[in-house]
Amino acid sequence: MQDTYQCEIVTFTANIGQGKDIELAREKAELMGVKEVYVENLCEEFVRDFVFPMLRANTLYEGNYMLGTPIARPLIAKRQIEIANETGADAVAHGATSKGNDQLRFELSYYALKPDIKIIAPWREWNLRSRTSLMNYAEKYHITVQTDKRGATPFSLDANMLHVSSEGKVLEYPEIQAADYIWSNTTSPEDAPDKPTILDIGFENGDPVSIDSKRLSPASILLKLNELGSANGIGRLDLVENRFVGLKNRGLYETPGGTILHVAHRAIESITLDREMGHLKDELMPRYAKLIYNGFWFAPEREMLQSAIDFSQYAVTGTVTMKLYKGNAVVIARKSANSLFSANWVTFEESNLIDYNDKDATGFIKLNALRLRLKKMLQS
Amino acid sequence: MQDTYQCEIVTFTANIGQGKDIELAREKAELMGVKEVYVENLCEEFVRDFVFPMLRANTLYEGNYMLGTPIARPLIAKRQIEIANETGADAVAHGATSKGNDQLRFELSYYALKPDIKIIAPWREWNLRSRTSLMNYAEKYHITVQTDKRGATPFSLDANMLHVSSEGKVLEYPEIQAADYIWSNTTSPEDAPDKPTILDIGFENGDPVSIDSKRLSPASILLKLNELGSANGIGRLDLVENRFVGLKNRGLYETPGGTILHVAHRAIESITLDREMGHLKDELMPRYAKLIYNGFWFAPEREMLQSAIDFSQYAVTGTVTMKLYKGNAVVIARKSANSLFSANWVTFEESNLIDYNDKDATGFIKLNALRLRLKKMLQS
Amino acid sequence: MQDTYQCEIVTFTANIGQGKDIELAREKAELMGVKEVYVENLCEEFVRDFVFPMLRANTLYEGNYMLGTPIARPLIAKRQIEIANETGADAVAHGATSKGNDQLRFELSYYALKPDIKIIAPWREWNLRSRTSLMNYAEKYHITVQTDKRGATPFSLDANMLHVSSEGKVLEYPEIQAADYIWSNTTSPEDAPDKPTILDIGFENGDPVSIDSKRLSPASILLKLNELGSANGIGRLDLVENRFVGLKNRGLYETPGGTILHVAHRAIESITLDREMGHLKDELMPRYAKLIYNGFWFAPEREMLQSAIDFSQYAVTGTVTMKLYKGNAVVIARKSANSLFSANWVTFEESNLIDYNDKDATGFIKLNALRLRLKKMLQS
Amino acid sequence: MQDTYQCEIVTFTANIGQGKDIELAREKAELMGVKEVYVENLCEEFVRDFVFPMLRANTLYEGNYMLGTPIARPLIAKRQIEIANETGADAVAHGATSKGNDQLRFELSYYALKPDIKIIAPWREWNLRSRTSLMNYAEKYHITVQTDKRGATPFSLDANMLHVSSEGKVLEYPEIQAADYIWSNTTSPEDAPDKPTILDIGFENGDPVSIDSKRLSPASILLKLNELGSANGIGRLDLVENRFVGLKNRGLYETPGGTILHVAHRAIESITLDREMGHLKDELMPRYAKLIYNGFWFAPEREMLQSAIDFSQYAVTGTVTMKLYKGNAVVIARKSANSLFSANWVTFEESNLIDYNDKDATGFIKLNALRLRLKKMLQS
Repeated sequence: MQDTYQCEIVTFTANIGQGKDIELAREKAELMGVKEVYVENLCEEFVRDFVFPMLRANTLYEGNYMLGTPIARPLIAKRQIEIANETGADAVAHGATSKGNDQLRFELSYYALKPDIKIIAPWREWNLRSRTSLMNYAEKYHITVQTDKRGATPFSLDANMLHVSSEGKVLEYPEIQAADYIWSNTTSPEDAPDKPTILDIGFENGDPVSIDSKRLSPASILLKLNELGSANGIGRLDLVENRFVGLKNRGLYETPGGTILHVAHRAIESITLDREMGHLKDELMPRYAKLIYNGFWFAPEREMLQSAIDFSQYAVTGTVTMKLYKGNAVVIARKSANSLFSANWVTFEESNLIDYNDKDATGFIKLNALRLRLKKMLQS
Repeated sequence: MQDTYQCEIVTFTANIGQGKDIELAREKAELMGVKEVYVENLCEEFVRDFVFPMLRANTLYEGNYMLGTPIARPLIAKRQIEIANETGADAVAHGATSKGNDQLRFELSYYALKPDIKIIAPWREWNLRSRTSLMNYAEKYHITVQTDKRGATPFSLDANMLHVSSEGKVLEYPEIQAADYIWSNTTSPEDAPDKPTILDIGFENGDPVSIDSKRLSPASILLKLNELGSANGIGRLDLVENRFVGLKNRGLYETPGGTILHVAHRAIESITLDREMGHLKDELMPRYAKLIYNGFWFAPEREMLQSAIDFSQYAVTGTVTMKLYKGNAVVIARKSANSLFSANWVTFEESNLIDYNDKDATGFIKLNALRLRLKKMLQS
Repeated sequence: MQDTYQCEIVTFTANIGQGKDIELAREKAELMGVKEVYVENLCEEFVRDFVFPMLRANTLYEGNYMLGTPIARPLIAKRQIEIANETGADAVAHGATSKGNDQLRFELSYYALKPDIKIIAPWREWNLRSRTSLMNYAEKYHITVQTDKRGATPFSLDANMLHVSSEGKVLEYPEIQAADYIWSNTTSPEDAPDKPTILDIGFENGDPVSIDSKRLSPASILLKLNELGSANGIGRLDLVENRFVGLKNRGLYETPGGTILHVAHRAIESITLDREMGHLKDELMPRYAKLIYNGFWFAPEREMLQSAIDFSQYAVTGTVTMKLYKGNAVVIARKSANSLFSANWVTFEESNLIDYNDKDATGFIKLNALRLRLKKMLQS
Repeated sequence: MQDTYQCEIVTFTANIGQGKDIELAREKAELMGVKEVYVENLCEEFVRDFVFPMLRANTLYEGNYMLGTPIARPLIAKRQIEIANETGADAVAHGATSKGNDQLRFELSYYALKPDIKIIAPWREWNLRSRTSLMNYAEKYHITVQTDKRGATPFSLDANMLHVSSEGKVLEYPEIQAADYIWSNTTSPEDAPDKPTILDIGFENGDPVSIDSKRLSPASILLKLNELGSANGIGRLDLVENRFVGLKNRGLYETPGGTILHVAHRAIESITLDREMGHLKDELMPRYAKLIYNGFWFAPEREMLQSAIDFSQYAVTGTVTMKLYKGNAVVIARKSANSLFSANWVTFEESNLIDYNDKDATGFIKLNALRLRLKKMLQS
């Protein structure tokens, strides 16, 4: 960019748990003569203000994908815009490709937060038609690029506290099984311990707050669950999903801690959340997931949905006991001071609920059936 | 009922794969002097006309429950009404309790199919206020009742080709872990083989038609997958769910073959189904699941949703390769002659798709961003 | 009730604008020896906390009905429960019939607010099988009952500030045109003035606050618009709708002011509301309307939807100019300081919006078309 | 195009009821030396296969707009593609502007039907930055362009059998009332007859088939209702709506016959359609309307929704009596052999429905209330 635009550059690298030596970004930038280098740890903000709100909705895109990549982009974009404002930058840039989703997630966020910003997307604007031409460019300008475990040019990798994803190369053939070495963030179920791990996760108002009764910060909770989940082979997903640009994409996702939290959150809701609020959440969720996937985190309709989702969580407080074992993250118990479940209410034995008259069910059934009966009598 | 109503009784027992000696029902009925005893095998119809249509929708109630019990009730009710018509019966009866869902599933189906039918629900109409009083009644009239593995009075069990469920007794305490012996239909993940099972499932128009290239009938496919799934510890679920009558319920569900088919169906859709049809299905699914759970299989709105779901499946044909291992049922490959995924279209390398101009993405992003930019400029 | 239960009675009559001499209720009660008689004016609360929140959602049940009756019931029930608490009453009662919706609206509200309350519903519990038997009962006990304009026993009438409804008698034949004399609250379009009325309605955050720039209280606004709407023949509706109990019902509704506000609210949203928030509101509205119609105002899912609806209204501020003429309430102009409409942005002439490049549309179209093209190429 | 591309041109003009001398298009084309000139009457196909299916869904975009323009575009595009196939054309072109919706409706249809087609959009590709520059271009090449009633350059007009729309010029100021002369297709309510018109509309399976018992073709029905509606001042709409490209647009729409059919269709559904199918339709409708508005008529998700909508219409047969009077199109009666309404079922008098026990309502209410009561007791 220095070559092309003859302009001063400010670099920004967010530490959102990608697990590499983040300070290398500073060194690389300084080597290239960049004067203003921002390297910031955003892990707590990432988990607290992005990952947890999304978990409240039990979010899964297309039934499976936990949105590890899309949920990180708006945070990076937001901080980037703030830095642009602080430094008086004319334009912002990102390195996302021209056929993927990330360009949308970055740029829709930029535009939503600063509508008059100029955006530079080298991948689309320069002659970088493919990963190969990118590697040639890097070589020409002596930019070191990480290679994979076997020394080959890398898969398209994205990593943060929530997940690691791998795309591209042989993965572009969904009929071919992914080689084991591609999985980088989790032990395989086969190699996981033979003994289960049991743990308690505490929730308050829909958000996890503790592990085994120990109160932890949002990022610390996710970190701890990543560790436990990864060791127990949890959170691997081999998926073909639909991109916003109209293409299908195959990705390998590893989301150990997020998977545990997803299962646990549903379990704490199962005893504390009103049925109809839960069903409404389930019906809104695919649309909410799609908004995040497509890059509309900062759109008003996402915020509108969030306000309904957040409203529902006021009593979602309690503890879930989970068992982790060779790829399985299962609920074995759940309790809450707000529990709407009461053995006295549903027991098959004579109940203290003097008010539940067996005859009530007759009336309930008959009025629910009335339109069906009329329809059959009058229209067949 | 013979005692209470002094009427002639016709008994009907449907074999839908509950796995007990179904002919015992005949003997028991004949012992009591019943002249017309219907015992029928409905397994193929059950899987073909009820389980598979439901699987086309990727149906999960409250995010998890595969509806093994609710999907069987309408079939039993339908055949029961046919028999009532054949034998000139004045009334139909069932044995479901007064606080559960099954009374709704039976009776809404009866009413929808024969609006002038009289329904007898002994549990609500007689003095059977609890399971204990039922056991006393059975003892008094010398009716043998099955006890559990340990000789105790049973959990509330429901079994068919799709699942086995257990409810009641200690399970009414969701904060207490379920004892291992309650699981009756699956090997535990811990006891499952250390070696994975790999298999191919073939689909046509959204329905499974073969295993490892061998064409099988609907019931045979489910039977085979139950066997494989059960051996590999697949399909256990410990859940608190919301009943239609307004109570929460804790159940243990074992759905080995159904779980495999659910995962596989999503995978074959992932390469053959148009994105927007898929997203529409995802948004309609919770409502469709609720209808089945609540007993509205024969309601017109269920049929209306089914017509949309079935429409979407015309190209959902191909093969999914799955790995089963200690509780995990995961997709490792998928292929189809109708695949909408093409390496040529999404490759990061230079593509043959001359038509995908990198600049197109710029326009796509800018027009998607336009309302966000205007909003920020004009309303903040 | 005094006769049947030998108990002390507290009466409560809410003035929500039904327009009769409300103090007659006090006299009647005192004549019968009731010691505690509550007669209260709830008009402002009714409009501010019930009618206006509902209008924010552009609520119409089954495409047409403005829910004048159902929106009033929860307020009456709420105040009734408060009075029960204040007076230490054991039970509450209402006069709704056994096949209608109002019993649900009252009782679901009672139960939601005071779950252990005892409810007396004379219509269901006594022998009042029909309006005729009710009239006989009234005659026997010397209770005066209002008759209609022609001295006959009345239609089932419900009146409040939002609407007047008429049901029953000849209206039970939807194939018969309603006689003119049944309409009681509006001038007929034919008899309305030949000269239109033009007025400005001011909105703030989604709620009407002024007429012709004169700031008015919620009830005063509705009162004024009822007057103008009624004079101009606005708000008549002859409808067959679906009751919660499973029956269809024909009603005549007159909602003059509400109709004007409904049209005006959509108009102010049309220039101030983000597109996607608006579309989300439109998709949620039928469900929201159904909740109110069925009596679930105090249910958490209604509140959850309300939180999303209310979120959307923060910029819905401005002025709408309406023309009222012989049954027509139409928008002729709308303006707002928050307007998202700008002539500069959409003009067909050369625009100042340097940023809207004509080529952008090409990219937008091509990426929106991509999945359609792939589908056609690969699946047909 | 002859000048720019030096290619042979085929012209196609569809008669879909725009009401101009359609053969002028032929003359104009021939004058310019075009050898293949297609002028075709598509009125019946337009109404039968596009307008009526859309009416089955009670389609309104953003609560008001009957989609007169968007529903015509896919038909034109479809026939254009067929002609391109017949004549071996390399490319298709259209005259829609670069900021509007019609470019999307044409091009998404072209691409969906013929994915490898080349599209020429002169407005975007040439230097036609505004209506003024277009008029200059026309003058330069001696192309006559229609002017408005007052001799001025025209509003942007679109006309077909369903509606006439006007956009642009002074209408770009939504705070300014539209001058009377802009309305071109309907009498004003003020000038409409003082005597109402009463008529019967017959429906079969959701589609109108007769007027006053006289069976007519689809186009003839719409033509007749346009005539009656127009004379009675029906179907004017002054609206600000949201475009797909992200802008708001103000349009004046005149849809006389369509407005009558919309009201009548809801009325025939009101007595023949099952409640839950109706509510499902209402919830799906905004999404269906959006798809048509945005140009996705030929997208699979529109067809999927259509299959559900069409399924619901099997019993929507009967007759609706309407009154047209000075802008009002109201229902005064409706009847059907399939009516689900029966005076016997809902009467307030003693009913023949022995099966509707007043006590049933108690049970219905109590079980609907149960979760609300539990929530209040356990969570507050």
